[in-house]
Amino acid sequence: MLGKKSSRTSSALPTGNCYTHCSMLQETLEQGRALTDAALDRLIPKETQEPASIHKAMRHSVFAGGKRLRPVLCMEAGRMVAGKKTAGSLPKKIEDLGAALEMLHTYSLIHDDLPALDNDDLRRGRPTCHKVFGDALAILAGDALQTQAYEVLAQLECPAEARVKIIEEIARGTGTVDGMIGGQVVDLEAEHTQPTAEMLEYIHRAKTAALITASLVSGGLYAGAKKNEVEKLRAFGRSIGLAFQIVDDVLDVTQTSEQLGKTAGKDTSAQKATYPALFGIDESLRKADALVSAAFAELDSFGDRAETLKELARYLVERKK
Amino acid sequence: MLGKKSSRTSSALPTGNCYTHCSMLQETLEQGRALTDAALDRLIPKETQEPASIHKAMRHSVFAGGKRLRPVLCMEAGRMVAGKKTAGSLPKKIEDLGAALEMLHTYSLIHDDLPALDNDDLRRGRPTCHKVFGDALAILAGDALQTQAYEVLAQLECPAEARVKIIEEIARGTGTVDGMIGGQVVDLEAEHTQPTAEMLEYIHRAKTAALITASLVSGGLYAGAKKNEVEKLRAFGRSIGLAFQIVDDVLDVTQTSEQLGKTAGKDTSAQKATYPALFGIDESLRKADALVSAAFAELDSFGDRAETLKELARYLVERKK
Repeated sequence: MLGKKSSRTSSALPTGNCYTHCSMLQETLEQGRALTDAALDRLIPKETQEPASIHKAMRHSVFAGGKRLRPVLCMEAGRMVAGKKTAGSLPKKIEDLGAALEMLHTYSLIHDDLPALDNDDLRRGRPTCHKVFGDALAILAGDALQTQAYEVLAQLECPAEARVKIIEEIARGTGTVDGMIGGQVVDLEAEHTQPTAEMLEYIHRAKTAALITASLVSGGLYAGAKKNEVEKLRAFGRSIGLAFQIVDDVLDVTQTSEQLGKTAGKDTSAQKATYPALFGIDESLRKADALVSAAFAELDSFGDRAETLKELARYLVERKK
Repeated sequence: MLGKKSSRTSSALPTGNCYTHCSMLQETLEQGRALTDAALDRLIPKETQEPASIHKAMRHSVFAGGKRLRPVLCMEAGRMVAGKKTAGSLPKKIEDLGAALEMLHTYSLIHDDLPALDNDDLRRGRPTCHKVFGDALAILAGDALQTQAYEVLAQLECPAEARVKIIEEIARGTGTVDGMIGGQVVDLEAEHTQPTAEMLEYIHRAKTAALITASLVSGGLYAGAKKNEVEKLRAFGRSIGLAFQIVDDVLDVTQTSEQLGKTAGKDTSAQKATYPALFGIDESLRKADALVSAAFAELDSFGDRAETLKELARYLVERKK
């Protein structure tokens, strides 16, 4: 086990010129969010479409002000692979892929929040889906967002060969063995136990990092990534995905519900397996920083084109919510 | 509205030589079930695969003795389009497509049986998934079967162009607008109301007929069906799917729980929208017969090759459970 010497302020990450980087990052995040939101609005049936209740429930959770991190990572991976540098030049209609990823992320949140699972009343600052629409409709809205995601993926504007690879990658990343559902299962079962570091790493890699990795890899595949490029994106995703979840655990301890827009301290009260519980806050953050530094090395061969993805990775460990 | 003159015994369906047809049908059903079961066993992670609990929950519901009607219809549609007549000559590995359809059907059953929805304790003669594994794992097992289905579909042994068409077809057939989830939503909302014939037809077409139609169409697409062949399969599916659900409603009234392997009389006690409630038993069966007769006409251009699908359609309205 590692010591607890590092702290947030002594981060070893390269910081660069903050003004330039911060505004570039801001632009990337804002452009990505706007594109994703427009695609989601186009791709999810309107609230007036019958049966209206299910579409209202789906939209309630999808349009609750998420950061759209997975779509942004996906789109930036696509831009990097396609060799485009500027913010305006994303691969055509890649936002539909981003929207499908966000639908899958949202479906998992709706189901995780159910009384039978995490029983959470607040998500992204709003009442959770089941609090507003009841458990039955929340279960079906989650199901429907998963279904809708695959309908969108099957119709993406890239070659059919790339589409089936993307679908396979995403299904595996959200599946039971090393994917999102597997992570949620082990997380539930680890409650009220003293988790080992190994179990904790499995939970975080499967529950969170796997979909983040699938987002990056699918963005690359959309833009025609070669096998070695896919593997670099995969390694990058595995590291930043784990770092992201470690920071999420830390924020649950250090921030208030108001700051987070969801119930803070849930992990502690549920005796959840978390990094701060096992390693303490400082050491957890040091691990997150180290993972991001390692992730950067994976993108060396992309040169300057990787700059935005690196900025995004840095943002993931330095965010406040 | 039609009169109530018809009865079960005066069915207008062609019956043919019963001995030959019955044994051919039996062989088709048994071969289809065996192939589907073997594919499901190969494609769903083993019970020993970690996290073991979710794989046990998935397998509990998948291997509960279902008739595998959707896979059988899918495989027969594939055989018909491929121009093969004998029971041994299915398109190669089409059973993987059948298995994916059965995973989707089973996911919907697991979620429908939850306390928040139909609250059913018995399914295919066994305790339902949530009764054995708890609500949390049942929700996740349903989710996981949907996810696994798309992973399998993305890897089918047919051209990528056909795979994405199949995925789109199946996602739409299980979606919210005219698909399975939409039907379930309206069904839940129609409880304790006096349904109109129009609403009832929507529920049955969306909740049941849409996945049966997607099974037939996807089987055809797997075998390389042309556009006009796809449309004939779609029309056939819409009719026999509705007939199937009408007969299901009737069996809920006329059979015991023991005969059905699930709780009988549920529809009546839940004041569900059903055909017998609206039209009576005899008239409901007459409608089912008429739908099957109409469905037969859709397959005329396939000649002799359609014989087995017609036998299956006849079986759907004459079954006892």
